Amino acid sequence: MQKLDLMYEGKAKKVYATNDDTIVWLEYKNSATAFNGEKKASIEGKGRLNNLITSFLFSELQKAGVENHFVQQLSETEQLVKKVTIIPLEVVVRNVTAGSMAKRLGIEEGLPLKKPIVEFYYKDDELGDPLITEDHIALLELATPEEVAELKVLAGKVNLFLSDFFEQKDIRLIDFKLEFGKTLDGNIVLADEISPDTCRLWDKHTNEKLDKDVFRRDLGNLTKAYEQILHRIGGNAHV
Amino acid sequence: MQKLDLMYEGKAKKVYATNDDTIVWLEYKNSATAFNGEKKASIEGKGRLNNLITSFLFSELQKAGVENHFVQQLSETEQLVKKVTIIPLEVVVRNVTAGSMAKRLGIEEGLPLKKPIVEFYYKDDELGDPLITEDHIALLELATPEEVAELKVLAGKVNLFLSDFFEQKDIRLIDFKLEFGKTLDGNIVLADEISPDTCRLWDKHTNEKLDKDVFRRDLGNLTKAYEQILHRIGGNAHV
Ligand SMILES: Nc1ncnc2c1ncn2[C@@H]1O[C@H](COP(=O)(O)OP(=O)(O)O)[C@@H](O)[C@H]1O
Ligand SMILES: Nc1ncnc2c1ncn2[C@@H]1O[C@H](COP(=O)(O)OP(=O)(O)O)[C@@H](O)[C@H]1O
Ligand SMILES: [Mg+2]
Ligand SMILES: [Mg+2]
Repeated sequence: MQKLDLMYEGKAKKVYATNDDTIVWLEYKNSATAFNGEKKASIEGKGRLNNLITSFLFSELQKAGVENHFVQQLSETEQLVKKVTIIPLEVVVRNVTAGSMAKRLGIEEGLPLKKPIVEFYYKDDELGDPLITEDHIALLELATPEEVAELKVLAGKVNLFLSDFFEQKDIRLIDFKLEFGKTLDGNIVLADEISPDTCRLWDKHTNEKLDKDVFRRDLGNLTKAYEQILHRIGGNAHV
Repeated sequence: MQKLDLMYEGKAKKVYATNDDTIVWLEYKNSATAFNGEKKASIEGKGRLNNLITSFLFSELQKAGVENHFVQQLSETEQLVKKVTIIPLEVVVRNVTAGSMAKRLGIEEGLPLKKPIVEFYYKDDELGDPLITEDHIALLELATPEEVAELKVLAGKVNLFLSDFFEQKDIRLIDFKLEFGKTLDGNIVLADEISPDTCRLWDKHTNEKLDKDVFRRDLGNLTKAYEQILHRIGGNAHV
């Protein structure tokens, strides 16, 4: 496989074309951003950690029957994935109150929810990724109502698998953000990344934050927290 | 009926107890506020206009079979209404894109919607009345899922009646905000007000704004716009 032109550079990853036009080459960067790009830093080792954690989790999800874009890890910071057209929705699943939902509703963080909550945010940096309703999704034609229903089912499956998986590693999966894309044949598959950048992960016993909130809230050493996650899930065993 | 203690003073109305504890006495004020209270003014005649318009529309809605809190107009700025426990939701119905929805989604104002859209905002000044989802409503226990379904049906009925009513007066009903409350016997009824403060009303031919956007966006004389509405709907005929 050959790495060709840079197609897109996002906040966390670069996307390169390859000589196979169904495959793109992802390169994980060291940049950390928060609050819609207002807070920025370069953190040595972050790209590697997110690439390793994501590669591991996506291959575990595949084994568990959750179809996704992952093809192959290439190096410590690179992976091959199926090229998809990203549906511009951030699908957020929450098991415990935290972050923007707690702030929006004026409630405490850390309250377990009776049932997981799925929220949709419109993936648009200029608009600040606003929360939107299913009517808004239909109005903007981001997805059909049937596709929205499918996204919720898929998000629920990812949550079941990941919650159980992390639980076994003494980690609480508080909430996470997913992105989905459409393959050329029109299938919806899980895409993008699943890492401490996109999940809230708290130590089961101490509730220590082992995710991007360490950066957002200046709680300590981010790479140490992410290494903790990689170590506990055993994702470095493959490299 | 006797006017007793002031129970609550809101941004637009004062609520007084009466000697009948199923009835409250509403007094419409001249204050205008926008952007969650950031912009403020006192506008002579506004209380009168909103009271007359609301009294007229609520009595028309009652004739059309939409149960609501309205009992009787008392004076140019006062009315009696059934006391209810307000459900802390702003139920917004939209027929045409405008306002915060257009801004949130980054779309033009004035685009007719294929189907009306109903949105729920959490009525909480400190939080800035945020948009919330039905899952959030359940989490905060603001209403049961059955009640949410009922609110949507009721909002749809109000929209059908008002859209048609205003259409006949050469006014386009772009969007509006409703509040509902529970009576002592647990019934959900339409409450609060329906006025140019709570509706977007555009002239059918010129699209001239005849509502609070005149104040929000400094488009001219607010009382003239509201008088236009009162005049066209014929609401002053009763006084
Ligand atoms: N399989 C895929 N095919 C095409 N694009 C993808 C795929 N997976 C993720 N992407 C997209 O790659 C881009 C780069 O990722 P990232 O740096 O996280 O971007 P962002 O700044 O938008 O969060 C994003 O737009 C993401 O949606
Ligand atoms: N029938 C009713 N019984 C009790 N309270 C009501 C009734 N109708 C409206 N209210 C409430 O009266 C209060 C005063 O109205 P308003 O000045 O518009 O308040 P706000 O500043 O919250 O918009 C509001 O809290 C409104 O919900
Ligand atoms: Mg991203
Ligand atoms: Mg009000």
